[in-house]
Amino acid sequence: MASVEVQLDPGLLAHILDVWPVARLATVDAGGQPHLVPIVFVAIDGVIYSPIDGKPKRSGNLQRLRNVAHNGAVCLLLDCYDDDWRALWWLRIDAAADVLLGADSPAPMAERIAAALRAKYPQYDSVDLFVDRPTLLRFRPERNTAWSAQPIDWDTLVAPRKS
Amino acid sequence: MASVEVQLDPGLLAHILDVWPVARLATVDAGGQPHLVPIVFVAIDGVIYSPIDGKPKRSGNLQRLRNVAHNGAVCLLLDCYDDDWRALWWLRIDAAADVLLGADSPAPMAERIAAALRAKYPQYDSVDLFVDRPTLLRFRPERNTAWSAQPIDWDTLVAPRKS
Repeated sequence: MASVEVQLDPGLLAHILDVWPVARLATVDAGGQPHLVPIVFVAIDGVIYSPIDGKPKRSGNLQRLRNVAHNGAVCLLLDCYDDDWRALWWLRIDAAADVLLGADSPAPMAERIAAALRAKYPQYDSVDLFVDRPTLLRFRPERNTAWSAQPIDWDTLVAPRKS
Repeated sequence: MASVEVQLDPGLLAHILDVWPVARLATVDAGGQPHLVPIVFVAIDGVIYSPIDGKPKRSGNLQRLRNVAHNGAVCLLLDCYDDDWRALWWLRIDAAADVLLGADSPAPMAERIAAALRAKYPQYDSVDLFVDRPTLLRFRPERNTAWSAQPIDWDTLVAPRKS
């Protein structure tokens, strides 16, 4: 296999973040233990936002929020596993994260994020976009690495129903 | 949605590790930066093994190996994204990791791991199971948390072709 590992330019990165529905988020706790959770997200002007939404959770005091408060260095992975290993690809984004609480964000920006999330995920017609006080994780990408087992056209990537 | 968050018993854990083809592995570097990569794996007697295989890589000096040498605390996530959010589930495994190099592992065990990988992944008929000196990551699970948006039968979980 002739693999390709590249850094994507902002336009391609934005495209993939627009079409791909899920990322796996790694944060790290104070003891150096990493923590993983799948997230939904939107990207606006190169910044990624993920809501603490109404998908069921044990409590609002989530590990991902505690970890980010302690250590803003996070990693996001977008990828697709396929039994055909020639079709494998992944996009890894190292980012600086912080937590946005309701009033931390100017209202017009908060509304823009909410509108983008509802546009990307019609599921929010039946799932609450936020629980209690609106809370978002904000990720400012610092580096990205994209890998594919074979050369692929990142700009024509489309999302499957499952991934 | 009525979600369920549970710890899976060893039998259910073994079943899911047997049928599910891919995990996302989070390791942490010396500076506290997490690193993510999708991996293939097998579980034998409750221990998870992932080969540094012939899928194309930039070099043998992989970040995941450097990170594990520094910090053995890792996290594995098995999950399936679905546009139908009622079908969402994930299984998170906190594990202690180390690196197994060729001669570190008794030959019969190394052969058992290789046979299990070839049985789970027929793709190894055309992709090298190892590059250069055989190298495996070994993960000893310490805690697991399984979540599903709705109650699911973990023991009947089957893998899709893509995930």
